[in-house]
Amino acid sequence: MKISEAIRSRRSVRKYEERPVEREKIEQLLRAAMQAPSAGNQQAWEFLVVENKEMLQKLAKAHPYALPMAKAALGILVLSKEAALKYPAYWQQDLAAATQNLLLEAVELGLGAVWMGVAPEEERMQFIKDLFQLPQGVTPFAMLAVGYSPDNQFVDRFDATRIHYEQY
Amino acid sequence: MKISEAIRSRRSVRKYEERPVEREKIEQLLRAAMQAPSAGNQQAWEFLVVENKEMLQKLAKAHPYALPMAKAALGILVLSKEAALKYPAYWQQDLAAATQNLLLEAVELGLGAVWMGVAPEEERMQFIKDLFQLPQGVTPFAMLAVGYSPDNQFVDRFDATRIHYEQY
Repeated sequence: MKISEAIRSRRSVRKYEERPVEREKIEQLLRAAMQAPSAGNQQAWEFLVVENKEMLQKLAKAHPYALPMAKAALGILVLSKEAALKYPAYWQQDLAAATQNLLLEAVELGLGAVWMGVAPEEERMQFIKDLFQLPQGVTPFAMLAVGYSPDNQFVDRFDATRIHYEQY
Repeated sequence: MKISEAIRSRRSVRKYEERPVEREKIEQLLRAAMQAPSAGNQQAWEFLVVENKEMLQKLAKAHPYALPMAKAALGILVLSKEAALKYPAYWQQDLAAATQNLLLEAVELGLGAVWMGVAPEEERMQFIKDLFQLPQGVTPFAMLAVGYSPDNQFVDRFDATRIHYEQY
């Protein structure tokens, strides 16, 4: 699939088929995430893959929009590792770029996924820290529910009024 | 180009050829950016395209890493529009996803680009606000230098030690 087509096709997919996602595909998703740019190439990211049904159920209760996790084939937690941060001000941007790469790769692999925000909301971050007993210095950024899904329809979000040339 | 190939090929490109970038390609870049996901689909982004050589020279002085702007065919300022924010906590993540889409689209279009951080560093933000006399409530997020470039070599950033299954 062409990159422009993947970018155009990507949707927030919240319904999944029951079949599991191959471990090889999961690695491809994470491989895409790790190719993202980061401030000073700091790459201060880690990923926690959750396939355990009981844990997915618990994750679905992390916040009001986390429900898709309950029926996902897997969840991916995108985490920041503080010790690796050379430019801490940019940690959110770096991890967002990695997350977006992952979502686009999912389109190519025929998977559906949805990005559910965690940071910077303290309550959501604490919930995940507690649930997985994350070590000190490992910070939850976002979580993604992933699975096979037939759900992918293009919606055009282009809006010419948002573009300014030379002067705002 | 396949999405996975674009993701793998994308590099921070800081040297550009002299030739200008077609207006049609600029629009394709922005079209890609606007297809990004955003919190509650708020799409609180705007884009300022700068081709004026004098302004590009000035942008190159925004901060120590902004030098590539001086020889770019164009600069793109990614901006946040506060009035459109329904979930302000997520503004950086939304705009980072849009920026990453744009960078990947650039690969497909045979363009080189580099993402230069602006927010959340107050001094950098103020510099751009002043330079373009941005209206109140329009916040600079990042700037990109863009141009044709032969520079694109794959570097593998995959690191299996960053992946954890079920438990960190």
